[in-house]
Amino acid sequence: MALEYEFIKALRELPIHPGARQLLDDAAVLEVGGARLVLTHDMIVEGVHFLPGDPPADVAWKLVAVNLSDLAAKGARPVGALLGYTLGDGDWDRAFAAGLAEALAAFDLPLLGGDTVSAPVRALGLTAIGEAAGPVPSRSGAKAGDQLWVSGEIGGAGAGLALLQSGSDEPAALIRRYRRPEPRLAAGLRLAPLASAMMDVSDGLLIDAGRIAAASEVSIEIDLAAVPIAGGAARDSAVAAGDDYELLFTAPPAAEQSIRAVSAALGLPLTRIGSASPGEGLSLVENGRPLPLPERLGWEHRQPG
Amino acid sequence: MALEYEFIKALRELPIHPGARQLLDDAAVLEVGGARLVLTHDMIVEGVHFLPGDPPADVAWKLVAVNLSDLAAKGARPVGALLGYTLGDGDWDRAFAAGLAEALAAFDLPLLGGDTVSAPVRALGLTAIGEAAGPVPSRSGAKAGDQLWVSGEIGGAGAGLALLQSGSDEPAALIRRYRRPEPRLAAGLRLAPLASAMMDVSDGLLIDAGRIAAASEVSIEIDLAAVPIAGGAARDSAVAAGDDYELLFTAPPAAEQSIRAVSAALGLPLTRIGSASPGEGLSLVENGRPLPLPERLGWEHRQPG
Repeated sequence: MALEYEFIKALRELPIHPGARQLLDDAAVLEVGGARLVLTHDMIVEGVHFLPGDPPADVAWKLVAVNLSDLAAKGARPVGALLGYTLGDGDWDRAFAAGLAEALAAFDLPLLGGDTVSAPVRALGLTAIGEAAGPVPSRSGAKAGDQLWVSGEIGGAGAGLALLQSGSDEPAALIRRYRRPEPRLAAGLRLAPLASAMMDVSDGLLIDAGRIAAASEVSIEIDLAAVPIAGGAARDSAVAAGDDYELLFTAPPAAEQSIRAVSAALGLPLTRIGSASPGEGLSLVENGRPLPLPERLGWEHRQPG
Repeated sequence: MALEYEFIKALRELPIHPGARQLLDDAAVLEVGGARLVLTHDMIVEGVHFLPGDPPADVAWKLVAVNLSDLAAKGARPVGALLGYTLGDGDWDRAFAAGLAEALAAFDLPLLGGDTVSAPVRALGLTAIGEAAGPVPSRSGAKAGDQLWVSGEIGGAGAGLALLQSGSDEPAALIRRYRRPEPRLAAGLRLAPLASAMMDVSDGLLIDAGRIAAASEVSIEIDLAAVPIAGGAARDSAVAAGDDYELLFTAPPAAEQSIRAVSAALGLPLTRIGSASPGEGLSLVENGRPLPLPERLGWEHRQPG
């Protein structure tokens, strides 16, 4: 964690593109000939972001999904992707390619190129390129008085991971939440014009909400009782579990009706879970009663093993 | 090798972007709002593409340079880059960041974003985005009757790698050719409108020339005696050594004078080393006398270790 913090701090002192948003956002925005491209690159590493026993097709799905989740949070539709692939075992690679075909077709994401290399460990990268239809919300736009919203349910993927780590692969719905996250592309496109700030929940609801608070220089309060928790997940661990790939966003109260209309149109729960006020940092209440923050808010940085 | 061939074949059956050039080129071309973006993603892996003992700043340089070399071969100027970085040892990471700063400044390449992850091995990826000033030459445009040209000198990097592998780190000029390749960006910009096909020499002059022949459906003959060999390198091994990151291109005979003018303007040798004719495959002559092709033409695919 200290390492990553220090490294990213060093990166911020490099020549940074104006569209990089000071490397504080999920994606970069590149204005080209009147169009606004959104660019993101995420890596997943075996033993860190996926389990050695995860089916290769699910790993392919996850690699695509985690990157498209960043595009979703910026209100961009997918344009194309570049793959960085470490070749290993032939059977695994074949199954991965089949899963990649499925994921690319599911999200209408054509392959633009990439690189295949030999490596002693699977470290897979994907660069996803999207085009924004309208405004591109950042993490830093939340204003005091805004409401905090989240899509879908929280904690299902974390519960699935815990099951897998304990040697169980049931219930299938939770395992699937971990292995086959669904990037909220349609919701992102519709919410981007309504949101003051938006990101995806990849490292944990609490830590990611704290990141919006820090970037926006506001205080964010979350009502734990309001958070929609996936069936089979425990509330306390769910909010720090990560891998949900739901949308977390703030919007002014005046947008509430429009947000509920998006929810109804897509059949996707959008739930108000908190609010932003002047100040800084994250706080937690339960039905109005202050709660101490848990010691661990989410994944600061994932260690191998 | 069979593995990579099979995997790339599987990738070709995926949904492919029209700008991906059937995954047969060094980079993809994305038309956006009247502009032509050129995109490439290359990975380098410790023990495969660089040596565990290589200075971290040189590894950073190489990661940037090998990607910009692809942009150079497509006549694109750098716009920005996304980094996929595997965190490891703090001192190494600090030195890498310093080297990255130097490389980004040297090539006027601002950082757009990326990802840092934990991993048990260093597997570094970079996506470089460029903008084409004019036509974007592919590998497939060579015509019978064209001349084959190469920039700079061949074999210096391979000789440097052989020295390092034998425990020597001198002469410094050859070591530098291996660790600090110079992408031919200025030459690429000026040659793109003149070339019928262009790529960079990354895997070896012979194997890469064979790729132009295959993609263009022509036969290519190289005159071994004409190839400009770096001082300190052996002619026979130089032409299959790889890591040169020089430009290899074909152009009609009528372009010869313009090509020589580019060479003079940039102070960069551009040497005519062969020609394309009807047919297929690669052949080698020396002062007009046919030579058998060596068994190994270059790096088909690099194995760890």
